[in-house]
Amino acid sequence: MIFTYQRTVRFPDTDAAGVVYFANALSMCHEAYEESLRHSGINIRTFFTHPSVAFPIVHANVDFLRPMYCGDKLMISLIPQKIGIDKFNITYEITVTEVIVAKAITRHVCIDVNNRIKQELPNEMISWLEMNRRDAEGAERRKLREEII
Amino acid sequence: MIFTYQRTVRFPDTDAAGVVYFANALSMCHEAYEESLRHSGINIRTFFTHPSVAFPIVHANVDFLRPMYCGDKLMISLIPQKIGIDKFNITYEITVTEVIVAKAITRHVCIDVNNRIKQELPNEMISWLEMNRRDAEGAERRKLREEII
Amino acid sequence: MIFTYQRTVRFPDTDAAGVVYFANALSMCHEAYEESLRHSGINIRTFFTHPSVAFPIVHANVDFLRPMYCGDKLMISLIPQKIGIDKFNITYEITVTEVIVAKAITRHVCIDVNNRIKQELPNEMISWLEMNRRDAEGAERRKLREEII
Amino acid sequence: MIFTYQRTVRFPDTDAAGVVYFANALSMCHEAYEESLRHSGINIRTFFTHPSVAFPIVHANVDFLRPMYCGDKLMISLIPQKIGIDKFNITYEITVTEVIVAKAITRHVCIDVNNRIKQELPNEMISWLEMNRRDAEGAERRKLREEII
Repeated sequence: MIFTYQRTVRFPDTDAAGVVYFANALSMCHEAYEESLRHSGINIRTFFTHPSVAFPIVHANVDFLRPMYCGDKLMISLIPQKIGIDKFNITYEITVTEVIVAKAITRHVCIDVNNRIKQELPNEMISWLEMNRRDAEGAERRKLREEII
Repeated sequence: MIFTYQRTVRFPDTDAAGVVYFANALSMCHEAYEESLRHSGINIRTFFTHPSVAFPIVHANVDFLRPMYCGDKLMISLIPQKIGIDKFNITYEITVTEVIVAKAITRHVCIDVNNRIKQELPNEMISWLEMNRRDAEGAERRKLREEII
Repeated sequence: MIFTYQRTVRFPDTDAAGVVYFANALSMCHEAYEESLRHSGINIRTFFTHPSVAFPIVHANVDFLRPMYCGDKLMISLIPQKIGIDKFNITYEITVTEVIVAKAITRHVCIDVNNRIKQELPNEMISWLEMNRRDAEGAERRKLREEII
Repeated sequence: MIFTYQRTVRFPDTDAAGVVYFANALSMCHEAYEESLRHSGINIRTFFTHPSVAFPIVHANVDFLRPMYCGDKLMISLIPQKIGIDKFNITYEITVTEVIVAKAITRHVCIDVNNRIKQELPNEMISWLEMNRRDAEGAERRKLREEII
């Protein structure tokens, strides 16, 4: 199953135009990433707080299809993909009542925090990538099979 | 029962000191307020998005007893109290594994948004205040009884 | 001259990894856009607060070349470009002491806020686009000439 | 002279009610504190990024007198005061065109970050406190003298 994170739009997520401020949508995607890591058994506090190995975002992009309003119940699905020995992408889809409202991608590079030099992804991240990738492939196959039937 | 909201500390809640940035703790309390309103049947979108009657915060204070870290599971309890025909306070307590880490208060005044003149609290807010206040009193009475026994 | 906005990195812009949180870099670019609008004589309050015509972001992307730290003095340059009768792009470059640390793009569509239907860019936005585009072209021509010489 | 920090209200500072989100006003006060530290010669990056000695906020309060809108030009004045060998308060006043729109206080305690035990304020902070306090007293004396005359 594709990892999915539920998130209600809160008042501070919005701006004076009455909808979610664009950069906050990327923050919500990052929350989904954090929750997915936690779900796979990773200790979030040591992962994100002054770690020795980190996975900074080197690229992000987001497309908005519809506005999001305060109180909206978002479902954020996430599929990570290893794209090198030291980097991975995460693809996100945000839906409200099964309608896609935004899509995003973040690209992460694994670095040694002390010298900021790239290094190979550690085992816990490879496990997380495989677990979520396989799940995603399974879901896609099932979906395809249903469509064929 | 006192209304309680569960909230995991997320990476964007933190700052370069490695803990929750102080102003973000107040935002988390506001989320608890939003969730409590929703729980009582109020439509969050119309309540917060360009409404004609609003409840802006005219005062807030917060005390920090311990730092909060990325990944911490917070429990935020909330007790509102009517303090006039046009205003109310909300008292919040943030706990992590049953240890209080912060306490906060927000004071809200009811205004007509068009002229920003104070006005009486509408019925849906009086219902919300009574429901949560009565629940809180019940919880305190039960607690007191247990202590006496 | 290309419009440039100066911005110091503040503590709440950072996260527990000790650097600017990725989504906040997009917010800083948006600040540069706001300042550029104001500079061209547009009333920021009426432009952004419950307007009847708005320019929501339908796409954004950002690339990070180096981390940004608390206290860093950023220079954010901005070049907008009309890409249709109802839309425009803005290209941003963030530098610290003349080294590029991030690049970003936002795409904006002009809509009637009441029905969210696309509409032609109003005159004040066309003026802003032309003023900043012409300035940018001038700067590029000058740069090219210097390179030839 | 009392230290004063100029700050324009930006779009992401606002919420769907069309005004500055309450917790963001405290963030703006913190920016004034950061700028005041920098002005006294303190290195902001080492002060705020994984320091060994830190000054976390243990209490904050804020009063809102008038709403702040996108584009508003704020003046934030700041007076710090030593209140013990290991703590200090900062009092802030936010004005728009010489009208006070908000007042705030933050209380900071000096700690050793490794064990989070309180410790005496270091010399650079005592200098900062004295410099800004003396300035503030001078301004108050001058004001008093003018009122008497």
